[in-house]
Amino acid sequence: MGPSMRDVAALAGVSPRTVSNVVNGAAHVAPGTRARVEEALRTLRYRPNAAARSLRRGRSGLVALVVPEVGSPYFGEVAARLADVAERRQWTLLIEQTGGDPARERRLLDGVRAQLVDGVVFSPWSLGPDEIAARRDTAPMVLLGERGPEGVADHVVIDNVAAARDATAHLLALGRRRVAMLGAASGVGEDTARLRREGYRQALAAAGLAPDPALEVPVGALHRADGARALEALLDAGTEVDALFCSTDELALGALRVALRRGLRVPDDLALVGVDDIEDGRYATPSLSTVAPDKEAVAEEAARCLAERMDGAAGEPRTVLAGHRLVPRETTGAARAPA
Amino acid sequence: MGPSMRDVAALAGVSPRTVSNVVNGAAHVAPGTRARVEEALRTLRYRPNAAARSLRRGRSGLVALVVPEVGSPYFGEVAARLADVAERRQWTLLIEQTGGDPARERRLLDGVRAQLVDGVVFSPWSLGPDEIAARRDTAPMVLLGERGPEGVADHVVIDNVAAARDATAHLLALGRRRVAMLGAASGVGEDTARLRREGYRQALAAAGLAPDPALEVPVGALHRADGARALEALLDAGTEVDALFCSTDELALGALRVALRRGLRVPDDLALVGVDDIEDGRYATPSLSTVAPDKEAVAEEAARCLAERMDGAAGEPRTVLAGHRLVPRETTGAARAPA
Repeated sequence: MGPSMRDVAALAGVSPRTVSNVVNGAAHVAPGTRARVEEALRTLRYRPNAAARSLRRGRSGLVALVVPEVGSPYFGEVAARLADVAERRQWTLLIEQTGGDPARERRLLDGVRAQLVDGVVFSPWSLGPDEIAARRDTAPMVLLGERGPEGVADHVVIDNVAAARDATAHLLALGRRRVAMLGAASGVGEDTARLRREGYRQALAAAGLAPDPALEVPVGALHRADGARALEALLDAGTEVDALFCSTDELALGALRVALRRGLRVPDDLALVGVDDIEDGRYATPSLSTVAPDKEAVAEEAARCLAERMDGAAGEPRTVLAGHRLVPRETTGAARAPA
Repeated sequence: MGPSMRDVAALAGVSPRTVSNVVNGAAHVAPGTRARVEEALRTLRYRPNAAARSLRRGRSGLVALVVPEVGSPYFGEVAARLADVAERRQWTLLIEQTGGDPARERRLLDGVRAQLVDGVVFSPWSLGPDEIAARRDTAPMVLLGERGPEGVADHVVIDNVAAARDATAHLLALGRRRVAMLGAASGVGEDTARLRREGYRQALAAAGLAPDPALEVPVGALHRADGARALEALLDAGTEVDALFCSTDELALGALRVALRRGLRVPDDLALVGVDDIEDGRYATPSLSTVAPDKEAVAEEAARCLAERMDGAAGEPRTVLAGHRLVPRETTGAARAPA
C-alpha cells in the first residue's frame, strides 16, 4: 500500500478533505494551501486509487474510440479531433484498433474491455447490423460510418451517396466519359462501398451514361498499395479510362503514383478525385481533388450524442448527418493553390 | 445494480464459478456449457464490474501511450504498432495526445489520469528532464525519444546523431555542397533537433565543409506547412541551396511541393532526404528518400521494458537503441522503385 490522503494531510498540515479537494479538483483551495498539499503529494509520491474512486463515482471517466486502423490518416485525423473534444469534456479517450477483424470487433463490442468504459464511439467495418444489435455490453454507444443499424444506437454519418455523386459529377463536368471507380467493392466497409457506388452510378445516369462493369473496380483494402494495384490492373487490361473516382484519398494517392510513373499527364490524360481530404492529398504534386467530410462535425456530434446518452437521455436512436464538400484541386485541373 | 454472476449462473443452470471462468477466460469450459452461459449473459445483459475486478487484481490492464499528436503519420504508425503489441499482451492501450503542450504533458505525467493505468509509454516534447524526474505518479514508465533523463526511466531511442549524419552524407556523396537543414531548431522536440543538427554538422565536417548559419533553418513545428514555409523563405532570401536534409518526412513533403511548384527539378536542382519513413513518402512523386527508424523495434522494446518493470523488475534505468537505415528513393536519384 502506498501513502494515503491522511498521510499527505498530516505532512501538509491540512485536513484530508482539503487534500481530496486538491486531488479531485472538487472545490476551491487557496493557492498557498494548494502549493503545500502539492508539495506533500510529490514528497510522498501519493497515488490515488483510481479503481476505488471509480467504484464510488460509478463512472470511470473513460470513453473508447474503436476504429479499424489508428495509423490510417483518416482515422488518425478523426481520433485527433475526438481527443481534443475529450480533453475539453474531461474524458480520458482510450483508442482501440480492430484491424477490421470481425473477432476483434466482436470482442471489443462485447467483451471485458468495453465494460471498463462509460461510453464507446465505434467505427465498425466487418460486423453487420444483427451482430451489433446483439451486443452484450450496455455502455452507451455511438456509431460512425454506415454500419449503423436503425434502432440500435445513435450514428453519425456523411451522405455517402451524395458525396460520391458530387465527386463523379465533377469529373463528368470536365467532359470525361470513361470514369472508373476504384473501391466499388472492398473487403472492408462493404456498406460504404455500396453507397458510394450508388452515388457514382447516379451521376453517370444523370449524364446519360450506363454503368460499365469493367470500370467498377473492387479493391482488397483501402490503402495506397491497393489503389496502385487497381490502376495497374486497369491499364494492363487495356481498359479505356479518362478519370478515376476513388473511394478514399489513399486509394487515389496510390493510383496517382502509378499514373505519373506510367507517363500519363494528370489531369489531361487522367483526372482523379478521392474522398476524405487527408493532409497528404493537399501536398501531393499535383494536389489531389477530394470530397471533404466535415471531420470536426463528426467528432463534435459523436461526443454530443454520447454525452447525452451517458447522462441518461432516452428516446429513439438518431442518425446525425455531418456535412461534406467537394474540394477541386490540381488533379481535376483546378488552379494551383498556394501550398 | 445490474444482474450479478449469481443471476447468470441461475439462468444457465451452472455454478457462479463456471460463469466467472467464461467471463474471465480463466479456465477451460466445455463448449456446450460455455454456449449456455454466453446465452444467459446475453439475455441478462450482464456487465461485470470492471472497477471491482481491478481492485481485486490490483491491476487495471490499461497501458497508456502519451504522444504529442495521434494524427501525425509518424505517431499514428508507432501507435498502430504498439496497439498490435498490446493486443498480443492483452493490454488495453489507451492513447492520449498532448499537442506538445507543457501543461497537458505535466497533467498526464502527474495527474489523475496516469494513476488509472498500470504503465505509461511517454513521448515528451516540452517537458525537460527535471520535470519528468519530479513526476508524482509512480506507475512504471518508458520514454520514447530524446528527452529521457538518465536515471529516471527506461528509454527507447534511435541514434539521432548517426541518423542525421547518414542522411547528410548521402546528399554529400551526390556531390552536393550547399546542403540546408530544415528543422535545425524547432518549437517542439528541442533535444531531437539539437542531436540531428549535430549529426548534420558532423557529416559536413567529414566532407571538409563548414556549417553555414544561413543553411540551418529553424521551423515552428514539424508539419508539411512548416517545411513549405521554410523552403519558400530560403528561396525568397536568394540563398544558394542544392540539397535539403529535413528533420521529418512531413517537413520534406511540404518542401517538395514548393520545389516542384517553383519549377525546380528534383533531384537535379534540389535533392531531399527526410526522416521517419512514413507511407506518404513512398507514394510521393518523386518518391521521398528517408532515414527509416525501426518502428517495429521501438514498439516491441518499449513494450518489453514496460512489461518487465510492471512485473517488478528492479535495476538502473536502461537506454535501448532501436536501429535505423537510409532508404534512398527518387528525391536523391535512386532508380524508380515499383510503387
